Amino acid sequence: MKYLGAIDVGGTKTMVGIVNTDAQILAKRHFPTYTGDCITHFSECFTRFNECLSELDLAIYDLKGIGVNMPGMVDVSTGVLLQASFAGWYDMDVKGYFKRIFGTDKIAVENDVNACAMGELVFGNACDNFLWVTVSTGIGGAVIIDRKLVYGSNSCAGEIGHVKVEYEHPAQCSCGQWGCAEAHGSGTAITRMFSEKALKDMELSTILAEKNLISDAKGCSILAKEGHQSALEVFDTAGKYIGRALSYAANLLNPQKIYIGGGVSDSLELLLPAINQEFTCATVRQCAGIEIVKTALAYDAALMGAAALVLSKM
Amino acid sequence: MKYLGAIDVGGTKTMVGIVNTDAQILAKRHFPTYTGDCITHFSECFTRFNECLSELDLAIYDLKGIGVNMPGMVDVSTGVLLQASFAGWYDMDVKGYFKRIFGTDKIAVENDVNACAMGELVFGNACDNFLWVTVSTGIGGAVIIDRKLVYGSNSCAGEIGHVKVEYEHPAQCSCGQWGCAEAHGSGTAITRMFSEKALKDMELSTILAEKNLISDAKGCSILAKEGHQSALEVFDTAGKYIGRALSYAANLLNPQKIYIGGGVSDSLELLLPAINQEFTCATVRQCAGIEIVKTALAYDAALMGAAALVLSKM
Repeated sequence: MKYLGAIDVGGTKTMVGIVNTDAQILAKRHFPTYTGDCITHFSECFTRFNECLSELDLAIYDLKGIGVNMPGMVDVSTGVLLQASFAGWYDMDVKGYFKRIFGTDKIAVENDVNACAMGELVFGNACDNFLWVTVSTGIGGAVIIDRKLVYGSNSCAGEIGHVKVEYEHPAQCSCGQWGCAEAHGSGTAITRMFSEKALKDMELSTILAEKNLISDAKGCSILAKEGHQSALEVFDTAGKYIGRALSYAANLLNPQKIYIGGGVSDSLELLLPAINQEFTCATVRQCAGIEIVKTALAYDAALMGAAALVLSKM
Repeated sequence: MKYLGAIDVGGTKTMVGIVNTDAQILAKRHFPTYTGDCITHFSECFTRFNECLSELDLAIYDLKGIGVNMPGMVDVSTGVLLQASFAGWYDMDVKGYFKRIFGTDKIAVENDVNACAMGELVFGNACDNFLWVTVSTGIGGAVIIDRKLVYGSNSCAGEIGHVKVEYEHPAQCSCGQWGCAEAHGSGTAITRMFSEKALKDMELSTILAEKNLISDAKGCSILAKEGHQSALEVFDTAGKYIGRALSYAANLLNPQKIYIGGGVSDSLELLLPAINQEFTCATVRQCAGIEIVKTALAYDAALMGAAALVLSKM
């Protein structure tokens, strides 16, 4: 069977779709993630997924299975979402729910960042040992060793967003701790640093107003791409911190490559000079040449990741 | 066959011996590592190993094999020592040499820190997913996932000694970089910090002289165990930096336990309060409870590690 179902529940937006084994997306829908009652949201996923099936004139039994990504910690052996604290979802039997509602056993549930790494492996022609890093509102990571995901003892390996990268002037992270990579290198951190600059710098705030931009990560990337110094500095700082986090992972795991995905990876060329500079200074000689590249799957990495679960886990 | 040969070439000292499969050391010799021509040293290893065989009235064919640890980077597929830069040894076919001189094919060669981790796994009743850290003159690490060593793409995974733990006031490391865990948490770092204190603190230098101690890591541990404040502060500082390095590994790999070996692990109780404090503040909630414990194999961890290679690789 060449059709793969994919449901990617992200922190902000959800995508559902049908992908074929040649990595083509045949139908898809996207809509905001409703962070109230999760059953209400899952029910919406079901409805929109069925629209995709109808569009292609397919039925559930035409699919090899459905991969479901969750934006939180998943027990992959049972398919239970342990926690997605941003939405207040805990201990939800996601696999059980979708099995029942779709009337099929062929459901695989995975953490969304892990799924992205599986997508890179299955559809992105990735190497055997790599690190996947999502840089978005937050920062998440997944470790692939010998073509297998590393879960660790509590299913929470890959937490590169919460390694500490700043000790002297740490910013507080969404996790409550201080100095995390996520607090200094994520989209949220870029927004924070850029807003601080805009508040202090009248010229910058005037330019933003003229261009009808706000002082968020998007505004920062637009100005940086136009060569505006303050915006470039923000990306340099974020890149330095991302480089620190990546250097820890490189020294510990010696991967062949590091793939970067997530919304902020659209601006990877702005981050890379600082990432590479810091990375080279902070890794052992044998790791300094590790390539840090943008995901081959671009915007659809997570949806392709959900589809990859069907191929890798069934 | 219940007899296992073990050759552990360390940075300072070498141990050779015969171990049985019940983890008993039946005969052993130790002698300084000669860092001139490596063949001269390997020849000494051969002689002293044969003494062990004679002592037990055994011959080479009574052994299941011989495990050989090297203090540097090893290509385990070929048994070639790629580099042990402290001794100036490069591209040495260690497996070939010992095969020829012992007249047996049953030789396994491994990096010494990796071998320690295998020893913990085979003889120390270790869990399936753990990190091994040697804290000695330097700091080295090994990663075990699902009971297997992680090598990475250039055989240099586990380099926890060279993750950066200090950015504002970094000390230079033996690797040439600045702020590495090894530069701030190793025996060498303890000696450096304690010497600096002794130079500035007349009372401390007087106590050292009275007790006939020098201001090295050993002297520091003796005074710390007697409750001397300056010495305790040095262990606190070193422990803080070790805790930082361990937190990176914990967040990335979510191991069940972290085992600490090496000479400085004799003073682990002096380091642990600061290690645990820093570790808890710097790891995600699910990793904060990871136990950090002393190796079960104590002083003989590396020799047992060499013996473990025979069981795990043959």
